[in-house]
Amino acid sequence: MKASHVLKRVEPPHWWAGMYIKKLQLLFYGDRISEYNITCSSDLNILQVEKTQNSNYLFVTLDTSEVQAGMYFFKFQKENFPEFTIFYAFKSRVEDSANRISFDSSDVFYLLMPDRFAHANPLINSVKQLSEKANPYDLNGRHGGDILGIINNLDYLKDLGITTLWCTPLCENNSATGSYHGYAQTDVYKIDARLGTLEDYKRLSHELHGRNMKLVIDYVINHWGSEHWLIKDMPNDGWLNQWEHFTNTTHKTTTLIDMNASVFDKEQHEKGWFVSTMPDLNQQNPLVLNYLIQNAIWWIEEVGLDGVRVDTFTYNDKEAAVKWLLAIKSEYPNLNIAGEVWLHNSAQLAYWQKDSKIGQMAKYNSQLPCLTDFPLHNALQDIFYIKHKKVKGLESLYETFVNDFFYPSPHNLMRFIENHDTQRFNTQSGGDLNAYKLALTVICTTRGIPQLYYGSEIGMQGDKNNGDGDIRHEFPGGWKQHKQNAFLPSTAKNGRNAYQERFHAFTKKLLNWRKDKPVVHYGKFLHFVPVDNVYVYFRYLKEEKRVMVIINNAKTKKILALQKFAEGLNGSKAGNEILSNQVLDLSIKLSVPARTPYIIELT
Amino acid sequence: MKASHVLKRVEPPHWWAGMYIKKLQLLFYGDRISEYNITCSSDLNILQVEKTQNSNYLFVTLDTSEVQAGMYFFKFQKENFPEFTIFYAFKSRVEDSANRISFDSSDVFYLLMPDRFAHANPLINSVKQLSEKANPYDLNGRHGGDILGIINNLDYLKDLGITTLWCTPLCENNSATGSYHGYAQTDVYKIDARLGTLEDYKRLSHELHGRNMKLVIDYVINHWGSEHWLIKDMPNDGWLNQWEHFTNTTHKTTTLIDMNASVFDKEQHEKGWFVSTMPDLNQQNPLVLNYLIQNAIWWIEEVGLDGVRVDTFTYNDKEAAVKWLLAIKSEYPNLNIAGEVWLHNSAQLAYWQKDSKIGQMAKYNSQLPCLTDFPLHNALQDIFYIKHKKVKGLESLYETFVNDFFYPSPHNLMRFIENHDTQRFNTQSGGDLNAYKLALTVICTTRGIPQLYYGSEIGMQGDKNNGDGDIRHEFPGGWKQHKQNAFLPSTAKNGRNAYQERFHAFTKKLLNWRKDKPVVHYGKFLHFVPVDNVYVYFRYLKEEKRVMVIINNAKTKKILALQKFAEGLNGSKAGNEILSNQVLDLSIKLSVPARTPYIIELT
Repeated sequence: MKASHVLKRVEPPHWWAGMYIKKLQLLFYGDRISEYNITCSSDLNILQVEKTQNSNYLFVTLDTSEVQAGMYFFKFQKENFPEFTIFYAFKSRVEDSANRISFDSSDVFYLLMPDRFAHANPLINSVKQLSEKANPYDLNGRHGGDILGIINNLDYLKDLGITTLWCTPLCENNSATGSYHGYAQTDVYKIDARLGTLEDYKRLSHELHGRNMKLVIDYVINHWGSEHWLIKDMPNDGWLNQWEHFTNTTHKTTTLIDMNASVFDKEQHEKGWFVSTMPDLNQQNPLVLNYLIQNAIWWIEEVGLDGVRVDTFTYNDKEAAVKWLLAIKSEYPNLNIAGEVWLHNSAQLAYWQKDSKIGQMAKYNSQLPCLTDFPLHNALQDIFYIKHKKVKGLESLYETFVNDFFYPSPHNLMRFIENHDTQRFNTQSGGDLNAYKLALTVICTTRGIPQLYYGSEIGMQGDKNNGDGDIRHEFPGGWKQHKQNAFLPSTAKNGRNAYQERFHAFTKKLLNWRKDKPVVHYGKFLHFVPVDNVYVYFRYLKEEKRVMVIINNAKTKKILALQKFAEGLNGSKAGNEILSNQVLDLSIKLSVPARTPYIIELT
Repeated sequence: MKASHVLKRVEPPHWWAGMYIKKLQLLFYGDRISEYNITCSSDLNILQVEKTQNSNYLFVTLDTSEVQAGMYFFKFQKENFPEFTIFYAFKSRVEDSANRISFDSSDVFYLLMPDRFAHANPLINSVKQLSEKANPYDLNGRHGGDILGIINNLDYLKDLGITTLWCTPLCENNSATGSYHGYAQTDVYKIDARLGTLEDYKRLSHELHGRNMKLVIDYVINHWGSEHWLIKDMPNDGWLNQWEHFTNTTHKTTTLIDMNASVFDKEQHEKGWFVSTMPDLNQQNPLVLNYLIQNAIWWIEEVGLDGVRVDTFTYNDKEAAVKWLLAIKSEYPNLNIAGEVWLHNSAQLAYWQKDSKIGQMAKYNSQLPCLTDFPLHNALQDIFYIKHKKVKGLESLYETFVNDFFYPSPHNLMRFIENHDTQRFNTQSGGDLNAYKLALTVICTTRGIPQLYYGSEIGMQGDKNNGDGDIRHEFPGGWKQHKQNAFLPSTAKNGRNAYQERFHAFTKKLLNWRKDKPVVHYGKFLHFVPVDNVYVYFRYLKEEKRVMVIINNAKTKKILALQKFAEGLNGSKAGNEILSNQVLDLSIKLSVPARTPYIIELT
């Protein structure tokens, strides 16, 4: 693309030949650009030129069905002004790009916040063109973590047993404050210069793929930051959901599924702003929606992404979100997409999964394949710790799996004990290793996709009651100045301390065991009503060895009479307990230590 | 029927010509009766004679398709024994018996326990042939209430605004102790002699119908009392769900809907016994199931019942329960049947309603039209009282109506604040009249069938923590020896005290207002997210006057800006508040007193 003093931006900055969607809408941005006449290479076909209220925009739709890879030109002409020409590239696609495989329940996610995970490049801690400078002393400030820092620690993640990386958004966030978390994006075609470059991001993808690992983008369709250039100079009035006075979303997701809800409440939730610095995009505006579709496809194609996580999925226009998903899926039929659906009721949550019968009852099909399992998260954070010397029962945990049948695909649920928006599990439990062991065992051996949050694996703590910054601390060892380096084993100098090592060793063992266990990835589930604070379930799949899991949350050792579990044992009289490396006799009785999980491969 | 020294019972004791089901299975019971040859009137057609392990039974199936009303004979012959003949009546049906209408959401239920409501006949307080004698000093003993006592107070119920009476079971309960509640039946073809006679029951029905009121039977298909004659001398081994040792049901209803549940857990729930004195019937046994079907039809037809309430619906064999319901519905297509489904999760509850899409997901259709709304009950008992000087928010209440779309028919839910098995609402609230007003307003103005429990309307208290007897006290005035008579107004001598009168007056006003309000019975529902402990909703139906309901659970007066509710107000600028008899200006703002419900008919 040849720059011009008039034309400031062309988006997407390039495209690919051979995409499934046969139209491409280019956004041209420049001073009174709409007053120019636009023509193009003879082998390009302009279908439509759309002008908006703001003369600085031209939206030009091309028919790309016949486009070959190569460079094309656009010529801009206006009476009494110099004409100019820019070049536009259609690239070749990577072989089989459309059919890329994606994450599924054989994977384990690691969610990290790039600003807080690891630091590598001191030259970009702060950059001139972006307002907020590094301030590691402020929990809500930028700490300087970057993409290179992540790349430097991929071996650590691989060794831990992680297969899939989910970073919070990496695009530019030029907000004056609080920009570190990445959700108030101000340019969605540019990596934030304080995190790195597009090339860094592509290298991250490449390095992951080289390790047989996957990369998932955190995509936000609901809102941008108020400093987004397209918001500061909007194409038209209908770009945002505007309110007379600032109106916060009510966070009442249920209004969108409730047939008794008022239009007033639906709009307050859906069109209200997430926070005052995150204007709500009007996805009913076809220009907005198409921009979001093309932008997501651009990243997937450009970086070779393996999947998408969609932020605040249920805060969007319901129908527009469907169109967005269908467009992405039309380009990448195998791509898995996880949506953040923050609901505490399994049936309400299930409404939002693709092909949900519950959604169908309200005449809706979200097209969203994968959901965040908050009901399970709530149960896990609630039951696995000792409070006032008491432990809670396992009812609420059991109940989440009773409700599996609400979901068209219980395998495609994201199972997590904490994430970047929740209380730290290890604070909730008071750093109780047994609590962590029990909870991690559940998410790694039941149906779905386990998701860890950076630091879970070393017992990292942080209290949401102190603000979000407190649950997003720097990973110890991610910065040179840290006295301790939890990326290194306890045997290394300044490596993990004994507390961290215990968490880490357990995590590593469990995750690596899980890697080649199709019975856990795809097997059926059979569970027994918890009795006496012990929950027993089985996974089974054709000829694979069955797995029996025992979650003993009681404060005492329990002796289980095994006759009861005959249906799950299926004739087995012995098994290997993989966490404690014991061969167990399963013929009559089994003793399980207090507050301990057992994962038994039946023999 | 002519008695014989050999034959002790014939059941059903008579039948009707012109029933939809064209087969009738007669049970003949007598000493070695199966050794007799049976023949019958030439105009009767015996299809099958079935003998069981126990020679004291003969099950004889007749083809009734051509049967005319009249008397028929059966002759019993056995070599070297005297032959004998009995006569059997097929009666004429009451005109249009099959098409009787039933209860629906225009009705208001009153649930009472006959032993505890009102006493009339001192001659039957205790009877010779039944073990347990009256002992009004024992909360778990028999207090002597009877059917005649109920009949004597029908004018009271009519005046209160009740339309439908549900009595706990009236059949014989010849248990040594705890027989008063009626759920351990020992002869399901006989009214318990301590409550009255079949003629009394028929008179109750007649008296109700004369007042344009309805009568609903409480039917138990899950279990009988251990003293039931058919259990003491069982026809065959498969009559009960037998266990080696007494096995209690686990009360884990979810095991029946959970696709991950073990057979072990399903059986423990379904085939486990309710209590040790209530053996669990094996409804997979066709003889048992048919006995239960014919018995229920017999009562409906004989007494002219208007509906059925099924006890412990989810403790039965799921498929047998469907067969039972389909049989009843084949005879009475319009009959409404409410099942006790004690689940706390709306979606799990909705599984059990006829034609449920959630049930369909698990390939089940219960055929049960009406459900007990325990999620709403839980919310009502939880939020409407002041505890430690605080009131709770209305979220859980609102949430139950958010979930309306889970149900094929939200109109066909039983809405109640308490029943004979729950904590007394007025104990939970500490006798707080405002709490009662708020809760009663909710169940009487939202969708569904309001159900009161005897004594609710006079603020009656009782603590479930003290045992079930404490929530089943005698209705004051139901016994001659009571010093006070709450059936009588406060103006009468020893009538309701001031506390009782306040509850009663509110109940009477609300129920009588509701009687002729199709908009409340059948109207659509529109609600707004509760804000600041105020919940606002509307009912609307075609040209009917709209109704706006305001539930202010806050401890202070609230001023509502009405613009927000424009969608519900639909242009109305004024309305009549029916509880306080005010005309209200609805043009701009409205002040609602602390902890007060408003029911406004819009004008």
